[in-house]
Amino acid sequence: MRLRPLVRVCLSTALLPTFKVEEYVVVIIDILRATTSFAVVLDRGATEIRPVPSLRACRALKRQGYLTAAERGAQKVLGYDFGNSPFDFLNADLRGKKVAFTTTNGTRALWNARKAKQIVAGAFVNMSVLLNWLRQQEDPVLLVCSGWKDHVNLEDTLFAGAVATELEGDFRVNDDATLIAMSLYQMADHRKKYYLEHSAHFERLVELGMQRDVKYSLRRDLHPVLPYYRDGALVNLLSVQV
Amino acid sequence: MRLRPLVRVCLSTALLPTFKVEEYVVVIIDILRATTSFAVVLDRGATEIRPVPSLRACRALKRQGYLTAAERGAQKVLGYDFGNSPFDFLNADLRGKKVAFTTTNGTRALWNARKAKQIVAGAFVNMSVLLNWLRQQEDPVLLVCSGWKDHVNLEDTLFAGAVATELEGDFRVNDDATLIAMSLYQMADHRKKYYLEHSAHFERLVELGMQRDVKYSLRRDLHPVLPYYRDGALVNLLSVQV
Repeated sequence: MRLRPLVRVCLSTALLPTFKVEEYVVVIIDILRATTSFAVVLDRGATEIRPVPSLRACRALKRQGYLTAAERGAQKVLGYDFGNSPFDFLNADLRGKKVAFTTTNGTRALWNARKAKQIVAGAFVNMSVLLNWLRQQEDPVLLVCSGWKDHVNLEDTLFAGAVATELEGDFRVNDDATLIAMSLYQMADHRKKYYLEHSAHFERLVELGMQRDVKYSLRRDLHPVLPYYRDGALVNLLSVQV
Repeated sequence: MRLRPLVRVCLSTALLPTFKVEEYVVVIIDILRATTSFAVVLDRGATEIRPVPSLRACRALKRQGYLTAAERGAQKVLGYDFGNSPFDFLNADLRGKKVAFTTTNGTRALWNARKAKQIVAGAFVNMSVLLNWLRQQEDPVLLVCSGWKDHVNLEDTLFAGAVATELEGDFRVNDDATLIAMSLYQMADHRKKYYLEHSAHFERLVELGMQRDVKYSLRRDLHPVLPYYRDGALVNLLSVQV
């Protein structure tokens, strides 16, 4: 019989140093919008996504033939091929392409987690694929919420709570942050409207005209891929051998 | 008409650097057990509690006539007058006494928040007094959960959620961490037993024979005092003029 490994939640990138990441399979979560868009990009056929910390690094990769996606302050940066909205990629033909990607929060979480046993990216749009893969792992799982400028946010916590709730049974939960995320997820069904009206982050995105992105990012299983981090880039584990 | 100030939650001391504490009235929360015991100590008549970072500093104050309370790894340290269990103080006559107090988590949160506009300590046992006082403040309120070794914990988050829920109406909530804490509080009624069985921190305390402390710390309004931080010590704001 398989010993049930732990599943834990890290509620903000700022809390990551309090975990020994090298003991975990890490799931990077940045629902609005990096990890949602990662799933779209790989589903559109891209062979890799290379997250980079700066616009400069992004431009350098352009010269090597990469397409470029750049977001700052929730906006697409002028002069790059894409922003980080899932809609930027939905109709793009990315077969065989490589995409360099720089975002405010998502890239940093990946870098900070780089010593983990394995790293994947998760979002509602690829949730079932993620869950199936996690259930095959023997190691403890750490769900890392990117948050927003180091603050805990609703949508990443909600997703972590959803994943932990689904994994319970196959995994052990004995961690307070995990219980908090699970309670949020279980609560959300009843009070989704309340949350949407009160959340600063949702408000900000709505002001920027991104209701569409929010709605899309909360839909489940639209993009059955698994972004898997190796050699500094994310590839779709379902279409490659690692 | 009074403009409604914000109420926000900081889920762990490790996240405190992401807030500008100097803009807030800060409530320090360490339900198990520092802030619960602070309320007991002041209710027993002590004129001040002086939180200190080390055992050495605690002993130095003993020579100046202070009583000493010292906890490390959830246990009372030998050679000091008290540990940090509320039961250590419940029957002590502390009228006119000063108490030097060193604990694992609570002291550090106070130190990190020292630049706040005002600092008070909160727990279920002095919750109504705290709420009344907060409602008279004009400044935004930051509820700081001490957590456990930088990890987010259940009982501090629960209390922050309870306070935010009570303040809503008089205060504005537009913060994701605050919504998460509030959802936990609203969920807890239905699932308290589940939480208690699954929480690592509760488990740890129960193993140490501290069920009694946990139960006591979750009771409301047993000690109608308000620990208020000034000149490096906590005094009962209800019995002194500031």
